[in-house]
Amino acid sequence: MIYFDNAATTKPNVECLKKAEKYLYNDYFNPSALYTEGYSVQLDLREARKNIIKNIADSERFDLLFTSCGTEADNTAIFGGAKRGNVVTTAGEHSAVYACMNELKQRGTEVRLAALNADGSVNADSLLNLVDEKTSLVSVIHVSNETGAVNDIARLAAAVKKKNKYTLFHSDGVQAYGKIPFRLTCDIDMYSVSAHKIGGIKGCGALIKRKNLIIKPFIFGGGQENGLRSGTENVFGIKVFEYAAEARYAHIADDFKKAEALRALLKSKLDKSLFTEISGENCSPYILTVGADGLRGETILHEANDNGLIIGTGSACASNEKKRYSRTILACGVGEKLADGILRLSLCADNTDDEVLRAAEILNRIVKNRKEIMA
Amino acid sequence: MIYFDNAATTKPNVECLKKAEKYLYNDYFNPSALYTEGYSVQLDLREARKNIIKNIADSERFDLLFTSCGTEADNTAIFGGAKRGNVVTTAGEHSAVYACMNELKQRGTEVRLAALNADGSVNADSLLNLVDEKTSLVSVIHVSNETGAVNDIARLAAAVKKKNKYTLFHSDGVQAYGKIPFRLTCDIDMYSVSAHKIGGIKGCGALIKRKNLIIKPFIFGGGQENGLRSGTENVFGIKVFEYAAEARYAHIADDFKKAEALRALLKSKLDKSLFTEISGENCSPYILTVGADGLRGETILHEANDNGLIIGTGSACASNEKKRYSRTILACGVGEKLADGILRLSLCADNTDDEVLRAAEILNRIVKNRKEIMA
Repeated sequence: MIYFDNAATTKPNVECLKKAEKYLYNDYFNPSALYTEGYSVQLDLREARKNIIKNIADSERFDLLFTSCGTEADNTAIFGGAKRGNVVTTAGEHSAVYACMNELKQRGTEVRLAALNADGSVNADSLLNLVDEKTSLVSVIHVSNETGAVNDIARLAAAVKKKNKYTLFHSDGVQAYGKIPFRLTCDIDMYSVSAHKIGGIKGCGALIKRKNLIIKPFIFGGGQENGLRSGTENVFGIKVFEYAAEARYAHIADDFKKAEALRALLKSKLDKSLFTEISGENCSPYILTVGADGLRGETILHEANDNGLIIGTGSACASNEKKRYSRTILACGVGEKLADGILRLSLCADNTDDEVLRAAEILNRIVKNRKEIMA
Repeated sequence: MIYFDNAATTKPNVECLKKAEKYLYNDYFNPSALYTEGYSVQLDLREARKNIIKNIADSERFDLLFTSCGTEADNTAIFGGAKRGNVVTTAGEHSAVYACMNELKQRGTEVRLAALNADGSVNADSLLNLVDEKTSLVSVIHVSNETGAVNDIARLAAAVKKKNKYTLFHSDGVQAYGKIPFRLTCDIDMYSVSAHKIGGIKGCGALIKRKNLIIKPFIFGGGQENGLRSGTENVFGIKVFEYAAEARYAHIADDFKKAEALRALLKSKLDKSLFTEISGENCSPYILTVGADGLRGETILHEANDNGLIIGTGSACASNEKKRYSRTILACGVGEKLADGILRLSLCADNTDDEVLRAAEILNRIVKNRKEIMA
């Protein structure tokens, strides 16, 4: 089996699972408990917090609260940071942000959507024009989960702060953390990350936030996570996340280069007469999104699946929404005929040249046959 | 080490961890993905849903949504079910309910608190008197996490519905599910459960709800859990939960009897001149709460810890709130001097008579010595 859906989820890092197993079998104590064994787990969570931050930010200036997933981190940032007036976001956000924005609209906040460029990145002028003195929050995805486009969030955040220094800047970093070398600047107030996209397990994420930034709590209860996120912490998931992030950041630059080479090979081997590239030049090396004009992506996905190749058609999460076309892909200016045939090929550094060659061969063959049948 | 803090968290069931390991090492696919491997995980989640419900309710009449913990299940029920007007709850709720109620108050809903009986159960008359035509939601804890008192939620729910058939009835069943033989009646609209209290792992819970009951979503995004709880599901945690619940329910009646015997032995061995019993007769066999008049519970906890005995002083979650006295214990009518010395001894069916005898000996000795020093 060739697994090219790493943007949907990754195979957990086996070494990290093993290393964290003691939190399942021995150190299972409640981290809020007052006895030594509980407090020791609390300290281990503190260690995880520090280590997950330090990969991407100055831990003197940022802290984090653990959540159950990237989606919850996005919800916490948006509902915790947005006020009346308006919020500004992009037409290319993950549903975890987009659906919150729809809810904010219901609750009486004006939501302004910035336009996308053809590659799925946000149009910076469009975004900045929407920010005014009543903008409480701006949310811009760091790496598009659908096209892999990388937004220059440091520059955008600085520009937003220049227009309104009280505006909070949030970014969904789920497809960037552990993949794209980057450091958070102090203009970025909140940043969402997820464990299972980088070798951790499902059920764990975090919201990294500027220290001293006060937001409203999202889950109420026993007051864990400094009162911002109540509920007993997912200790095993958190420690696997810490270790998986450490493993990723230990060779993030090398992996980046490996992925670049794999992606370039894949791109060169896909038949240009059959596939239209959606991802642009300034794109994550881990994602290659293409369209097969006039075909249905889902059909190709299933046939590839029968041939031992696992790919996506866009956001796995969006499959629950049962919409035919991707909102983000349409916002890139792609017509419905091409938008119907979108395939997202998402890599990890452990993929091989051989897998890439076989995958390209499978996809070329499937699409060629189908086009011939239709002709 | 003697572990008598099973109400805070339990040692995960090793067999269940092993059985679910394949979701970490092999079947790691995103359950929302469209290919066979993803859909297969989706079906496994469906199986878990059915099995977790069937232990306690008719799965034709109830469904459930997975959450990241009992706290999130409570938040989902309360914010999803409460409307303007008023909500009614008890003075003995877990913080996961109580803190939501405080937030509802901030948002303009009137919150009415029913009084407790001396054992920590709710006073039924007090509760029913508070329900009127403007009551959108009633929330009553099933088994008190502080005293172990069991509320007759089936009877209370029926009485609430009789007063106002539109009122939703929610119960936090975290200390009851997998422990107290009980079936949900159709008057109970929502019921919160948690995995790590019954041999599952931290980071997983569920809200069991009446089928067709429409509540507002709590976490917004990709539309998982029928749109009510977005975010990639914690597959490993959910499957461990399913298996752990199955293991518990396979011998729930026997375990109940075992716990009753252990608790009776513990009760008989604690020196009555040193300890005042808070838990009453109609109490979960898994919890024995006592007070050492004039001493600090936390001090006893630490000394017991040094002697190899792990106990609680009440809700572990509440330790984050840094309040000296338990809100619930005070609401039982306990004075501050006794409330200061509360110890919660919480058992599991795997505890032994020998552990009980040693624990009683340790506690008697510690409290006796301290009282002698003070005298």
